[in-house]
Amino acid sequence: MNHNSGNGTKPTLLIALGGNALIRKGQKGTVTEQFENLRVPVRQIASLAGDHRIVITHGNGPQVGNLMLQQESCDAVPKLPLEILVAQTQGQIGYMIESVLDEALMELGADFNPLVSLITYVAVDEADPAFTNPSKPVGPCFTAAEAERLDYPTMKTPKGFRRTVASPKPVTIIEKREIKRLIQSGFIVICCGGGGIPVVRNGRAFNGVDAVIDKDLVSALLAAEIGADLLVIATDVDGVMADFNTPGQRLVSRMRLDDAADFLRNDKSGKGSMAPKVAAAMRFIQSGGKRAVITSIETVCDGVKGTAGTQITRI
Amino acid sequence: MNHNSGNGTKPTLLIALGGNALIRKGQKGTVTEQFENLRVPVRQIASLAGDHRIVITHGNGPQVGNLMLQQESCDAVPKLPLEILVAQTQGQIGYMIESVLDEALMELGADFNPLVSLITYVAVDEADPAFTNPSKPVGPCFTAAEAERLDYPTMKTPKGFRRTVASPKPVTIIEKREIKRLIQSGFIVICCGGGGIPVVRNGRAFNGVDAVIDKDLVSALLAAEIGADLLVIATDVDGVMADFNTPGQRLVSRMRLDDAADFLRNDKSGKGSMAPKVAAAMRFIQSGGKRAVITSIETVCDGVKGTAGTQITRI
Repeated sequence: MNHNSGNGTKPTLLIALGGNALIRKGQKGTVTEQFENLRVPVRQIASLAGDHRIVITHGNGPQVGNLMLQQESCDAVPKLPLEILVAQTQGQIGYMIESVLDEALMELGADFNPLVSLITYVAVDEADPAFTNPSKPVGPCFTAAEAERLDYPTMKTPKGFRRTVASPKPVTIIEKREIKRLIQSGFIVICCGGGGIPVVRNGRAFNGVDAVIDKDLVSALLAAEIGADLLVIATDVDGVMADFNTPGQRLVSRMRLDDAADFLRNDKSGKGSMAPKVAAAMRFIQSGGKRAVITSIETVCDGVKGTAGTQITRI
Repeated sequence: MNHNSGNGTKPTLLIALGGNALIRKGQKGTVTEQFENLRVPVRQIASLAGDHRIVITHGNGPQVGNLMLQQESCDAVPKLPLEILVAQTQGQIGYMIESVLDEALMELGADFNPLVSLITYVAVDEADPAFTNPSKPVGPCFTAAEAERLDYPTMKTPKGFRRTVASPKPVTIIEKREIKRLIQSGFIVICCGGGGIPVVRNGRAFNGVDAVIDKDLVSALLAAEIGADLLVIATDVDGVMADFNTPGQRLVSRMRLDDAADFLRNDKSGKGSMAPKVAAAMRFIQSGGKRAVITSIETVCDGVKGTAGTQITRI
């Protein structure tokens, strides 16, 4: 498989790390656990740095939930809006990924790559219908009685009542020019953490909004905006499964755009996990991307090579 | 005054924003207040962007204190070590400064400057004597009875008992090469928030440590490491005061290195505010810097011009 982009330079990978890159199922999510977990994908990424330009994005679900829970528990401090909590998790997780990657690059003797972790904000449209129908559960679980007293919308989930916020579509990544220049200059860039800090344009200013943006959709958009060759969505399963959760469950190793659209039409696993990833991969391909891969955190390198995960291409 | 560095390029300013750039005395520190306060120094910085290369650093005292207080109030979430909280404040404040600066540059029609806010970590020496004598108070105030029950060192302050942590000397900024390349390429860089995330080198890895680094000392070190022409320390007073807190109090508008050393020997205002800033300015000049300015948040531009604050030079 030819990874080279047209101009003969190194191909650009955008690797989106799912939540399990930091916290595995059944873990409490201590800092020690998170650093240890990160080594699995990050060492693979380090080994790709010689032959590729690399951008890394990441989720922040449990981390932003923890900050919300801490806020709820403490009346002595002014409450911060959600976009500031997202910014805080970009600091936290950006630091963790950068320091583990620094270490992995040094182990390989490849620490000549300049490496930065950027705060990133992402424009959304204030007319996005998501704002009139907040549907994304975030943060801690409440009892019905507690939820009654809260002054923001909640929904009943299997684990209890949770706050719901809007999850608008990303329109553009504000720092896209910077990110593009950085990767062209050989920098490895960590950015768009937690889907990016959501902002709406207000005249000459960008104002934060109480929302969260889907990390995979932002990753697909950024991959398109910077002209990445390959979008890698690293998650907690081997890839897209046909007949998911049945005895006949099996990995779909290859999907064309039409197959992906069929999958989204027929998917019965709910809006849980895989549908947004397939939709993000489709968006990238529809925007001119050549290939997207949905693969497990353990098989990032093989996913890039084309020998693991679900490989999605136009035709 | 000639700001040009030897090679004919734009001079490089490192501007260190004090805590009052975000939260003024008597304020609670809501997000709205912090954004509004930031406009005062940031609009001045935007007006300097045409003729200068610019690096911005900032403090994080109240913000990291709030995160500590929220952690203490909530047992449902794993506690994070201090360096992770510093990383969170880099995300929070880095976002706030970047978005206000973006707006100010757009107002001036000067938004061609690429602009990034970086996570930054700073190496300290694990043999630094500060680690055996934690002396920097951080976070919330406790009663004597509460302090008794805590499992970390505390000290009595005028406001109550507070946790104390080590404040080791910064040895080197890990991202200095990246920051230098970025400003040479015309980027405005926000970095080293809260003094940087403190790490010690451990073989090939850098491990976070429970400490905070003085923001002005880190700024002086970074200014030296990237070859800045001018270090601007922006704070809540007009500059260094002679006979501080007496009827004869007056601004010292000019200091040579010898004067600064005299000031530190004779300063009776305690270790509170000004001594660390003078020490940081001295460190920058001693490392080859040409000029440092200690000035108020309101007079950053005049401080750069040489017409406000305390101007500190070698001779």
